[in-house]
Amino acid sequence: MELKIELTRQPKEKPADENKLSFGHIFTDHMFVMDWDKEHGWHDAKIVPFAPILMSPAATCLHYGQEVFEGMKAYRTESGEIRLFRPQENFRRMNESHDRICIPKFDEAFLLEALKKLIEIDADWVPHTYGTSLYIRPFTIGTEESLGAHSSTKYKFLIIMSPSGAYYEGGLAPVKIYVETKYVRATPGGTGFAKTGGNYAASLKAQDVAAEEGYSQVLWLDGVHRKYVEEVGAMNVFFVLGDEIVTPELDGSILSGITRKSAVEILRSWGYKVSERALDIQELVDAYHAGTLKEAFGTGTAAVISPIGELKYNDLVMEINHNEIGEISQRLYDELTGIQWGKVEDRFNWIVKVK
Amino acid sequence: MELKIELTRQPKEKPADENKLSFGHIFTDHMFVMDWDKEHGWHDAKIVPFAPILMSPAATCLHYGQEVFEGMKAYRTESGEIRLFRPQENFRRMNESHDRICIPKFDEAFLLEALKKLIEIDADWVPHTYGTSLYIRPFTIGTEESLGAHSSTKYKFLIIMSPSGAYYEGGLAPVKIYVETKYVRATPGGTGFAKTGGNYAASLKAQDVAAEEGYSQVLWLDGVHRKYVEEVGAMNVFFVLGDEIVTPELDGSILSGITRKSAVEILRSWGYKVSERALDIQELVDAYHAGTLKEAFGTGTAAVISPIGELKYNDLVMEINHNEIGEISQRLYDELTGIQWGKVEDRFNWIVKVK
Repeated sequence: MELKIELTRQPKEKPADENKLSFGHIFTDHMFVMDWDKEHGWHDAKIVPFAPILMSPAATCLHYGQEVFEGMKAYRTESGEIRLFRPQENFRRMNESHDRICIPKFDEAFLLEALKKLIEIDADWVPHTYGTSLYIRPFTIGTEESLGAHSSTKYKFLIIMSPSGAYYEGGLAPVKIYVETKYVRATPGGTGFAKTGGNYAASLKAQDVAAEEGYSQVLWLDGVHRKYVEEVGAMNVFFVLGDEIVTPELDGSILSGITRKSAVEILRSWGYKVSERALDIQELVDAYHAGTLKEAFGTGTAAVISPIGELKYNDLVMEINHNEIGEISQRLYDELTGIQWGKVEDRFNWIVKVK
Repeated sequence: MELKIELTRQPKEKPADENKLSFGHIFTDHMFVMDWDKEHGWHDAKIVPFAPILMSPAATCLHYGQEVFEGMKAYRTESGEIRLFRPQENFRRMNESHDRICIPKFDEAFLLEALKKLIEIDADWVPHTYGTSLYIRPFTIGTEESLGAHSSTKYKFLIIMSPSGAYYEGGLAPVKIYVETKYVRATPGGTGFAKTGGNYAASLKAQDVAAEEGYSQVLWLDGVHRKYVEEVGAMNVFFVLGDEIVTPELDGSILSGITRKSAVEILRSWGYKVSERALDIQELVDAYHAGTLKEAFGTGTAAVISPIGELKYNDLVMEINHNEIGEISQRLYDELTGIQWGKVEDRFNWIVKVK
């Protein structure tokens, strides 16, 4: 497929202070757009100036939730090189999300090349300060003008990009987590493994309740037994139990995180015993009382590693590692961010250079 | 709140043949729009010409599924009167959907008045042929331009309207239903009771599989035990078992249908025993073998009553009432549509006249 390019004639001013970048409010000069219909399949791929899109109020994505997204980052090294972290994994997962909610699949290799071209054009938007990055948001939406509750017959695939600040402005810091017992995020047979809008809409209520109680995220339990640990907020979760590191297995209701997968590979390469298995919340409580719950942390693209300092389950407040960053959490954070920003050798070949 | 009105200067041509109206493709001349932000709450309510909306590609509704909708109809009687069926129930339910996914609630009485005004302005778009109607779609979407995964700080509430054909062109007809055993639509603790996009996106895959096998809808089982009957497609479901009429109880994962509620009230007024309770799929199988599964039907705004002629559960194909319309299904259909189109006395005071 050909990739058409239309450059902006009105470049925007870039953010003056990279230390004051927040997340997801500023957008670069260009975006990628591609359309799908039954006659042409995916077609008309182009890079155009970032601009609002004109949408029918009857567009299916506004009613029936056919929307899928991904999140990744471009990092600038000290030498000025721009690089991506395992982007193939994002496009592969995006196609799996597409499949679950009946959006046609796309050519992953073509999209990676289109993304590299888009970043090349907007290269000056990749911030220079260590810890900052260019956040990349590919997403697909159903755009047929129809109120029939069926799969859309038209789609748009877009990539927009946003320079983003360092997640931890004052360095890595532990968070307080609330174990959610009322609301459910996902269930086997549902859409939990897909990055689709409905999963996020479903999670907002619990997040609001947790925030009111002073907790920054919720720990989700499974929807069937209401006892197996699933995710923490929008991150995967790991627990150090004695000399075993446990993360919930991918059972269909958990997102297959790329940071999760990378963490498992790094930890195993260091000789740790990592188990992907069912983890009963009662096992965590027992380990806490026995003194073997040593560390806990979330993994995700935004925070990379998010150490958990406190876990509240019903009336029990469990302080973990004296509410300090654990040794494994810190080492993993340094290794992953080191690979991403080019300070540590890329021994797994995870980096894709933009140019 | 003031309701501003801007009439179109370019009225569209109305559909020439009311017998060829399909569903949800043609829209009237006007729509209702209202905005929400933290400073003003719901504000700037207006009726304006139907037109595409300009939307940031970073609008939250395109990523995180914060979208809620309702569906109702305006009916034209033989004498030309235009009427709504229990519209207060739709706006009440819409606010419950809002609450579940953290969208601010709205003033239901104001919205009903605004809707009546909108229909009055587009009154000529309400079709005249018996069985046709003006489909009404109120919906709310998060519109903040931000990639942060939190509740939107801006929303739009819209009402669009579409003249729609008779659901059963050749009269009431039984449908074939496939009992879904792999995919799950909703779970207690989730969003099943809310009319929000994610529930519909989650259901598409199973619908596609059922359609490939020649079935028009799926019967959903509960996500925890995978055995209790929930809904059929996007309708509630009723079974006549001996002299008991059973419909699944509202457990949080089932939509609280307005046609469902009305059917229960009408059936009870006729002296039938109606039970809202858990219904194990095995109980249906047993009743089928015992000869006591007499009728089955779906209820919803679109079809009103949809008789089920065949139910496939794993390898068992159950023909119901010789694949013919049951006596109760037909009587209920006649009563409900009779009330809606003004052919039967509105003894429950369900009708709201537009003018």
